[in-house]
Amino acid sequence: MPGTPASRPLRVAVLGASGRMGSEACRAVDGAEDLELVARIGREDDLSAVVDAGAQVAVDLTVPAVTAQNVDFLVEHGIHAVVGTTGWDDESRGALRRRLEEAPGVGVLIAPNFAIGAVLTACFAEIAARYYESAEIIEMHHPDKLDAPSGTAVHTAAAIARGRAAAGLGPVPDATEKDPQGARGAVVDGVHVHAVRQRGLVAHEVVQFGGVGEQLVLRHDSFDRVSFMSGVLLGVREVGSRPGLTVGLDGYLDLG
Amino acid sequence: MPGTPASRPLRVAVLGASGRMGSEACRAVDGAEDLELVARIGREDDLSAVVDAGAQVAVDLTVPAVTAQNVDFLVEHGIHAVVGTTGWDDESRGALRRRLEEAPGVGVLIAPNFAIGAVLTACFAEIAARYYESAEIIEMHHPDKLDAPSGTAVHTAAAIARGRAAAGLGPVPDATEKDPQGARGAVVDGVHVHAVRQRGLVAHEVVQFGGVGEQLVLRHDSFDRVSFMSGVLLGVREVGSRPGLTVGLDGYLDLG
Amino acid sequence: MPGTPASRPLRVAVLGASGRMGSEACRAVDGAEDLELVARIGREDDLSAVVDAGAQVAVDLTVPAVTAQNVDFLVEHGIHAVVGTTGWDDESRGALRRRLEEAPGVGVLIAPNFAIGAVLTACFAEIAARYYESAEIIEMHHPDKLDAPSGTAVHTAAAIARGRAAAGLGPVPDATEKDPQGARGAVVDGVHVHAVRQRGLVAHEVVQFGGVGEQLVLRHDSFDRVSFMSGVLLGVREVGSRPGLTVGLDGYLDLG
Amino acid sequence: MPGTPASRPLRVAVLGASGRMGSEACRAVDGAEDLELVARIGREDDLSAVVDAGAQVAVDLTVPAVTAQNVDFLVEHGIHAVVGTTGWDDESRGALRRRLEEAPGVGVLIAPNFAIGAVLTACFAEIAARYYESAEIIEMHHPDKLDAPSGTAVHTAAAIARGRAAAGLGPVPDATEKDPQGARGAVVDGVHVHAVRQRGLVAHEVVQFGGVGEQLVLRHDSFDRVSFMSGVLLGVREVGSRPGLTVGLDGYLDLG
Repeated sequence: MPGTPASRPLRVAVLGASGRMGSEACRAVDGAEDLELVARIGREDDLSAVVDAGAQVAVDLTVPAVTAQNVDFLVEHGIHAVVGTTGWDDESRGALRRRLEEAPGVGVLIAPNFAIGAVLTACFAEIAARYYESAEIIEMHHPDKLDAPSGTAVHTAAAIARGRAAAGLGPVPDATEKDPQGARGAVVDGVHVHAVRQRGLVAHEVVQFGGVGEQLVLRHDSFDRVSFMSGVLLGVREVGSRPGLTVGLDGYLDLG
Repeated sequence: MPGTPASRPLRVAVLGASGRMGSEACRAVDGAEDLELVARIGREDDLSAVVDAGAQVAVDLTVPAVTAQNVDFLVEHGIHAVVGTTGWDDESRGALRRRLEEAPGVGVLIAPNFAIGAVLTACFAEIAARYYESAEIIEMHHPDKLDAPSGTAVHTAAAIARGRAAAGLGPVPDATEKDPQGARGAVVDGVHVHAVRQRGLVAHEVVQFGGVGEQLVLRHDSFDRVSFMSGVLLGVREVGSRPGLTVGLDGYLDLG
Repeated sequence: MPGTPASRPLRVAVLGASGRMGSEACRAVDGAEDLELVARIGREDDLSAVVDAGAQVAVDLTVPAVTAQNVDFLVEHGIHAVVGTTGWDDESRGALRRRLEEAPGVGVLIAPNFAIGAVLTACFAEIAARYYESAEIIEMHHPDKLDAPSGTAVHTAAAIARGRAAAGLGPVPDATEKDPQGARGAVVDGVHVHAVRQRGLVAHEVVQFGGVGEQLVLRHDSFDRVSFMSGVLLGVREVGSRPGLTVGLDGYLDLG
Repeated sequence: MPGTPASRPLRVAVLGASGRMGSEACRAVDGAEDLELVARIGREDDLSAVVDAGAQVAVDLTVPAVTAQNVDFLVEHGIHAVVGTTGWDDESRGALRRRLEEAPGVGVLIAPNFAIGAVLTACFAEIAARYYESAEIIEMHHPDKLDAPSGTAVHTAAAIARGRAAAGLGPVPDATEKDPQGARGAVVDGVHVHAVRQRGLVAHEVVQFGGVGEQLVLRHDSFDRVSFMSGVLLGVREVGSRPGLTVGLDGYLDLG
């Protein structure tokens, strides 16, 4: 850790350690000098092992069915939590918030997307949207993906819609009268979203803004699952100093 | 003209000279040292002016309703024709071919697209399509365009389909099961085509090919209508040495 | 003007009205419903015409030799100024600041770049730079440009350097040992900058950030000088409510 | 193998099997239904094992110091060779050609680049170069690469130079007078080449062509070393039907 060579490493547990993301997270924590991986918890393991190992922070990369009770357990034992599992809704987040009120020093980060680049793209898109007449999204993924458009693209479309609303912009200009096969793609929150599926790609997002005589493009490419790990590590390092519930990695980024 | 300073300029007429493309063509012919603009024919003018002016080549940029009879007139008078007007079908092209048999020295070029870059893109796409599992097209235009997808994209999709068929490739891989809003776009000849409409753009085409671990992208940008003029001038210079009917500017390009 | 239909148009003068940027600005002001072009001042004209016309805001798009005295005159007469002329340095800006202290209600905006997209790109680049190991710039312009790299690219490189410094990042990784012809380009504030010169382009900037397994790209394309006008109009509308000196259009953008 | 289900698999040996490319090649051959991996030859192994295993084709992915004598041995034993090792020059290729005259049925392919996309890019670049005033190359690689520009970019620059020469084009337009830090990059065969080094990238090449009002871009991305394998497999399958020496994978591609 820069500047604090004498500090002892942060003790970290990973829940869902045998899954794809979880094993990647174990490797990332293991490889960081300022962190120590003290527990790898799989589906069969008892959560008490996290407490026994003296973990200060736990990363939850399990499944929707168990993530809420995992986090309850962690909060109860004063362990900060970084959560990448999907499946949280308004109700479960509300319940968690109430529980955190009774555990004042504990921090929880729930992040639907740990790719810092994707988070920055959505933040920048919301700002840029205020200044451009046109905005469109093209998301590109490997051809084994089952759904379209991607959750990231839907999230970015919502950010663009917020930016446009804040600037008092109306609908995007589009004179299309004849499009029998649907080439104009999906419309999410008033923003056209196109989904490309292509062998060799992983997860990519292109956001295009257009005004008279100009264009602004934001593009994020995830070439490998390992790209999510810098966001996970950022969360692990920061969560202890951010008590209460934070939703979205952008809450931890320095966007000033 | 390089190497032949003593040669006299080629005498050129433009039909449809007051239209947007026609006036651009007049300017281009006028600006070329090896060409002389001898007649600008508008809607009201008589075609005999083309003959009177001693034109050797005529560029037809009129409208579907009159282009066939214009070309008949030109062939009859031994004037080569470069035709950018749409509206030609199998029947009218067949009739023109028979007429050209009786005018053995006369050349006619009918080109639906004079942008050399767009023509090269379609040619390259047909070749590349043989070697890639995935292929997709994104066309992007100004938001005042009425139809989607663009004719250029449909033409390129057909080229890709020919390339895939020649290589014995089956359908592109696509596991999409859930796409309620149509984010996957149009499917033309088995190729997904996406249409973006954005203020500030003119006419752009992106063709993406994907294989395991790699991607090939072909992209053509027309920033201005003037980009079509290098194709028109190429046609004007070459048509005299290519008797009979040629369909498509690619017939004049050196693609070896 | 949204919400204030009854308000009278803002009275605007343009200095340098016969130059390329100036005439574009006249056209833009003329075309805006909430603005009224009341004076076009050329090289020969007397500045008193700006006062006589009752201008509330003046746009200075003249030349380095006269811009400072123009702005002095405007401030003295209580006219807000939006300045796009280059040639301002620390000394002239300091003198202007002192003068503005004696004219408390008057606002001056000096903006080296009125392209909102270029300004956003630099702002976003400074933020993103904190989170990526690698950062590089490619600027692309028409081949008639005399200098390389562009001022915009140099400005962006400085923003990236600030972002990296704030995050405690060291030099970008680069193992290059052998580069006899200088393919790695210029190094500005520790950031490699590449300059492409290509017929058909106008002014384009690509900023690339790289981390393990991912990439973030910011790209701005100016296809036409008219793209600067949305920034000029933004300045004209806002300068009256921002007394004192503001340097850089980013001071007027809502980047929160 | 399409259409010949009854045919027996081709027997293939890999030389340099324990290297990075070699082990990738073993995996690719192993995974292809129409091929059988019969020998993996490492540094310590005797070449006679290739003969003993009854290999019909051998892939040489060794080192410059031994590749020539490996190929001599293979030719002598009537085994076709697909060679990806660098270090061949005019002299060694000439010697090999003479040797092949005495082994009339044997085919050898020496390919400096097995990425089909990179080979297509160079071919397309040579064609497109005839029709555009400007041409420039940007190659992008991981930051651990020792030399700049890449061999692929140098090869593509030569292809562009051939295309321009064939069309009688002079130097690219470039008015740059002031470029103190070398932002315009390297000049290879008259073509400006820029090298980007960025964490997260593997091997990428962008070729840009510009004319009045338009742009054509060719881009190839290798995200993973596995992308070279489709070229290796193409070579393995074809080399037996192409006696004599072929230099460059483009000789095997259907570019008509």
